Amino acid sequence: MQPIVGIVMGSDSDLKVMRQALDTLHQFGVPFEVRVASAHRTPDEALQYAESARDRGLRVLIAGAGAAAHLAGVLAAKTTLPVIGVPINATALQGEDALLAMVQMPAGVPVAVVAIDGAANAALLAIQMLALADEALAEKLAQHKRAMARKVHEKNEKLQQALTEFFPA
Amino acid sequence: MQPIVGIVMGSDSDLKVMRQALDTLHQFGVPFEVRVASAHRTPDEALQYAESARDRGLRVLIAGAGAAAHLAGVLAAKTTLPVIGVPINATALQGEDALLAMVQMPAGVPVAVVAIDGAANAALLAIQMLALADEALAEKLAQHKRAMARKVHEKNEKLQQALTEFFPA
Amino acid sequence: MQPIVGIVMGSDSDLKVMRQALDTLHQFGVPFEVRVASAHRTPDEALQYAESARDRGLRVLIAGAGAAAHLAGVLAAKTTLPVIGVPINATALQGEDALLAMVQMPAGVPVAVVAIDGAANAALLAIQMLALADEALAEKLAQHKRAMARKVHEKNEKLQQALTEFFPA
Amino acid sequence: MQPIVGIVMGSDSDLKVMRQALDTLHQFGVPFEVRVASAHRTPDEALQYAESARDRGLRVLIAGAGAAAHLAGVLAAKTTLPVIGVPINATALQGEDALLAMVQMPAGVPVAVVAIDGAANAALLAIQMLALADEALAEKLAQHKRAMARKVHEKNEKLQQALTEFFPA
Amino acid sequence: MQPIVGIVMGSDSDLKVMRQALDTLHQFGVPFEVRVASAHRTPDEALQYAESARDRGLRVLIAGAGAAAHLAGVLAAKTTLPVIGVPINATALQGEDALLAMVQMPAGVPVAVVAIDGAANAALLAIQMLALADEALAEKLAQHKRAMARKVHEKNEKLQQALTEFFPA
Amino acid sequence: MQPIVGIVMGSDSDLKVMRQALDTLHQFGVPFEVRVASAHRTPDEALQYAESARDRGLRVLIAGAGAAAHLAGVLAAKTTLPVIGVPINATALQGEDALLAMVQMPAGVPVAVVAIDGAANAALLAIQMLALADEALAEKLAQHKRAMARKVHEKNEKLQQALTEFFPA
Amino acid sequence: MQPIVGIVMGSDSDLKVMRQALDTLHQFGVPFEVRVASAHRTPDEALQYAESARDRGLRVLIAGAGAAAHLAGVLAAKTTLPVIGVPINATALQGEDALLAMVQMPAGVPVAVVAIDGAANAALLAIQMLALADEALAEKLAQHKRAMARKVHEKNEKLQQALTEFFPA
Amino acid sequence: MQPIVGIVMGSDSDLKVMRQALDTLHQFGVPFEVRVASAHRTPDEALQYAESARDRGLRVLIAGAGAAAHLAGVLAAKTTLPVIGVPINATALQGEDALLAMVQMPAGVPVAVVAIDGAANAALLAIQMLALADEALAEKLAQHKRAMARKVHEKNEKLQQALTEFFPA
Repeated sequence: MQPIVGIVMGSDSDLKVMRQALDTLHQFGVPFEVRVASAHRTPDEALQYAESARDRGLRVLIAGAGAAAHLAGVLAAKTTLPVIGVPINATALQGEDALLAMVQMPAGVPVAVVAIDGAANAALLAIQMLALADEALAEKLAQHKRAMARKVHEKNEKLQQALTEFFPA
Repeated sequence: MQPIVGIVMGSDSDLKVMRQALDTLHQFGVPFEVRVASAHRTPDEALQYAESARDRGLRVLIAGAGAAAHLAGVLAAKTTLPVIGVPINATALQGEDALLAMVQMPAGVPVAVVAIDGAANAALLAIQMLALADEALAEKLAQHKRAMARKVHEKNEKLQQALTEFFPA
Repeated sequence: MQPIVGIVMGSDSDLKVMRQALDTLHQFGVPFEVRVASAHRTPDEALQYAESARDRGLRVLIAGAGAAAHLAGVLAAKTTLPVIGVPINATALQGEDALLAMVQMPAGVPVAVVAIDGAANAALLAIQMLALADEALAEKLAQHKRAMARKVHEKNEKLQQALTEFFPA
Repeated sequence: MQPIVGIVMGSDSDLKVMRQALDTLHQFGVPFEVRVASAHRTPDEALQYAESARDRGLRVLIAGAGAAAHLAGVLAAKTTLPVIGVPINATALQGEDALLAMVQMPAGVPVAVVAIDGAANAALLAIQMLALADEALAEKLAQHKRAMARKVHEKNEKLQQALTEFFPA
Repeated sequence: MQPIVGIVMGSDSDLKVMRQALDTLHQFGVPFEVRVASAHRTPDEALQYAESARDRGLRVLIAGAGAAAHLAGVLAAKTTLPVIGVPINATALQGEDALLAMVQMPAGVPVAVVAIDGAANAALLAIQMLALADEALAEKLAQHKRAMARKVHEKNEKLQQALTEFFPA
Repeated sequence: MQPIVGIVMGSDSDLKVMRQALDTLHQFGVPFEVRVASAHRTPDEALQYAESARDRGLRVLIAGAGAAAHLAGVLAAKTTLPVIGVPINATALQGEDALLAMVQMPAGVPVAVVAIDGAANAALLAIQMLALADEALAEKLAQHKRAMARKVHEKNEKLQQALTEFFPA
Repeated sequence: MQPIVGIVMGSDSDLKVMRQALDTLHQFGVPFEVRVASAHRTPDEALQYAESARDRGLRVLIAGAGAAAHLAGVLAAKTTLPVIGVPINATALQGEDALLAMVQMPAGVPVAVVAIDGAANAALLAIQMLALADEALAEKLAQHKRAMARKVHEKNEKLQQALTEFFPA
Repeated sequence: MQPIVGIVMGSDSDLKVMRQALDTLHQFGVPFEVRVASAHRTPDEALQYAESARDRGLRVLIAGAGAAAHLAGVLAAKTTLPVIGVPINATALQGEDALLAMVQMPAGVPVAVVAIDGAANAALLAIQMLALADEALAEKLAQHKRAMARKVHEKNEKLQQALTEFFPA
């Protein structure tokens, strides 16, 4: 299937975090592609990837990067597609560097930033954007929301049982 | 015109920052509505606003809030529409509190966070999302990108002239 | 016994921290109930829990949450009971995100915040509030204070003995 | 009237922030007293104040302090009454020092911390505690909550009017 | 004269900080050029500028940028010339964002970062690099170092005089 | 021998850090005593310890504490002897809380703060103070300084040897 | 009179903060000298000043510096006299840089750090050290402590009067 | 071969980080020397090393240090050669202390700072400086840049293969 979400990561070591985005998109049946491309080591590829993204049929880009995380901003510089940034905890500063380097974009070139290591939410955000013109996807999101609530209910049930053991009346 | 972007702010004092979002949407011809609603002072209204947003025709929500900025997360809890968060510099901690309170959302309920006081980018991000299904809007974004580049070129021209005065050969 | 303290946590994984609150309340003989409820995954339940808390006989709420910790603020929005917040160290930012997201509440909707992972103190604070109208509980608190002092004395005694071994005269 | 809330501040310069607590208590008709006492300059008075607080009829203590803000913790060391801490923005670190020095209390001696400069919320929190045994006060808190919501509604109304001027249809 | 240092700034508003670099290079007689170019608004120009820099005779690049300061890293991606980064205090986070976004570069693509708003030192660093192959410039640096020391001596002299007035023997 | 340095720690768990202070004082032959006393759990003992310190022959106090580290400030409130504070890394905030809670003392009541977990330096600082009136101790400090330099020289020698193996000519 | 405290500051612009140290020493009758000397601009003078300090009769050194504040550490490297460091708020990072650059000294070379801009406390700390061998000075410190307490009492008195006006019974 | 890069580290424990600089210089065939020298334990050696560096044929200095990292600044004070600083993650503050202590140098005495633990980039930066007057070295840098790009391409290839296994069409 023609991919509509493009996931770019600065290094293959980021896959262990970004894997959550792949799994989430897969679970929602959203076709995607993944690239290792670096704002610093392969800047031309990164720019070309973003520049050609719309014409190649991509609708949303997700960029995961750590340290001085420039990847999302560099992609956003070359496309008018929405770019979602995942700051990755990859240095002694534990993701604070990547967060600030991604989120503090200057006026005119937005990046949509999620939590440090928040790759699953990056995928969900992409799906929300795609669902603006895809009722079936919107319904899947609604189901997902209900499933999350059910899971919380189940955890609460289990907790109640555990408590009766810990603190018998 | 039927609004398709809903802007919510926690306090009317946030308007001085959020005004940039209104102006940007207006400039792109995107119909929007604005609400003062608080996750803490009017939680029911905030939740109902988000819950009914999709059915009322809204496509994207933008939430601006400062301090312990819960508004974006609370809206995101009740809708599958994309929610964009603008952390506002409103306390002694200069927006760091609002940034962390908005961006560190748990898995399952994404918020798309832009820079502290980055209301113009929040609007642009919303427009990028809407442009996924609106070619005319996509073209306006491309024009906006070219206009930004031209403005940089003009500033560079002016700088060159100024330099010949400052540092005559 | 009718619970008078309600403990809410955003995820069952928070139990390993919040367990200290349960144990402390149990030790003081204060009846309590525990719920897993999320400001983001089950917002309606969270709000209803807070809204009905006073009428169901609860006197104090304790909320434990990590990351963009909105739970305490969302509960406080719907009740006039005191709400105690426990910021939980659950992300790469090691609790700083949860602390700021809980403590920087806007004027009008207070949350009483204790230390990161400070669940035991949250319980003690709840007990102090309850003891305002319960002399027996106040006396237990006074005993607890004296016991803490005794434990410090005992540790000091042991240290003196250890020192005579480490640094014989 | 016999004061039931004791407000202590480390310096009279803190009054410009703490004044909000006085006004809020006054507005709710809660009798209070105010003391300038310092954990560092008058430690004995501070300790005696806390030690005798319960017997003198006080029910809640509020401590406002900036910098290395030890006052709340020192009071909490000598009383089993609830102690509410207001970290004050009084140094180059803009309240972050006072926040951490107040909120990170060790297990056994809780302080209920509100936002930096959050004196109004400190008073509301004290009133919530007192309202546990005072139905009239609880009703006033409920009214206050409704009044806050009304004020948000009014601000929203005004905003709608302003918008029709800014962005005429 | 053929410029050998290229100064790039993301916005003309950065000139008020970067002006110190221009003045310092001018004072040392080092020919330079200045460009307004943005990693986000004119990424192609920025990349081309860096890519062609060596062939056009430039020896060192200096990049000044604030917020999510990607400029220095983007230039460094396209040249093997040394790139010096000046993080600019341009947002509510007071330069901490620009500092981390510049300094935490991944292995393989270095940026030489100076202090927040440290444009004068960026110029001196460039001059130190150029002086590796320019004895006259090296001597000017040595003179500059001696002049700085003399200025400290003079300030010390003045202070001694002032003190005899403030604290007469 | 009559102790002249008093070491106080808030908890016996701090001994693993503070042990370095004991060892250093022992090595310099400075008689000391150690107490477990808490600003929060045994405030009266802590105050009395400081108040009586000078009369009991103590010359310098060293306080080690983590979290909301009030111990050094509380001791300093009750003595005119110099008080040295060792902020201990004991919470999720990794000593930043203890550092700020110790170092930001208000004017009038100084604490001499060393590095996080810097117990050895606390002891050396105490010895420097004592050496102001003890020539023999001053000479030991000078010897210690020379020994440190020698150790650096030895490490440098070893490094040179290792390098010839790693990178043979 | 022969100075016994040496105050060194990295720049004469630091005098506006360090002036408090001069005034405090003057008030206690402690003879002092002041130098402008820089760890970076006049490193030899700084080192020689520290190296010769003991022989020239100085007993305590106080160093005030901002930014990458190396002065205190560099002085401490060359003397066994106690060195007190005053981190000065002189950059966009508001003293946090100077604080960390001063306080995190490695084992073996202590610096006694006071609060950001805490020059008055630096002087008091020096006086406490000198008072170890000077009973008259110790008595002055005790008087100063009592005077501080009296001032707090007076401020409390004034506050009580003001309150009766603000909130008449 | 006559060394042209001088690497100085404050402690031999820094070798595990700085080793990357040695390996990189070795790989590029740049002769270097390494010294353990401390700004605090052997200040005279450190200063003399810097002062004599140019005359001994060194062209660039690299200083690695953690905690209150003064080494780079102290070297820069005594030479007009470029000094590159590597802040080392060596304390509870995880390199933030070393970063600020190195990068916030005052005007007049620059240090070129790379990422926390970024020793490989420090070496590359030194090589870039040397390559200003060494065409062969400049060509090696260009090759290194191409090799980095190739490695990214290879990683991307491998990722594509892995994905076809994880998510078979």
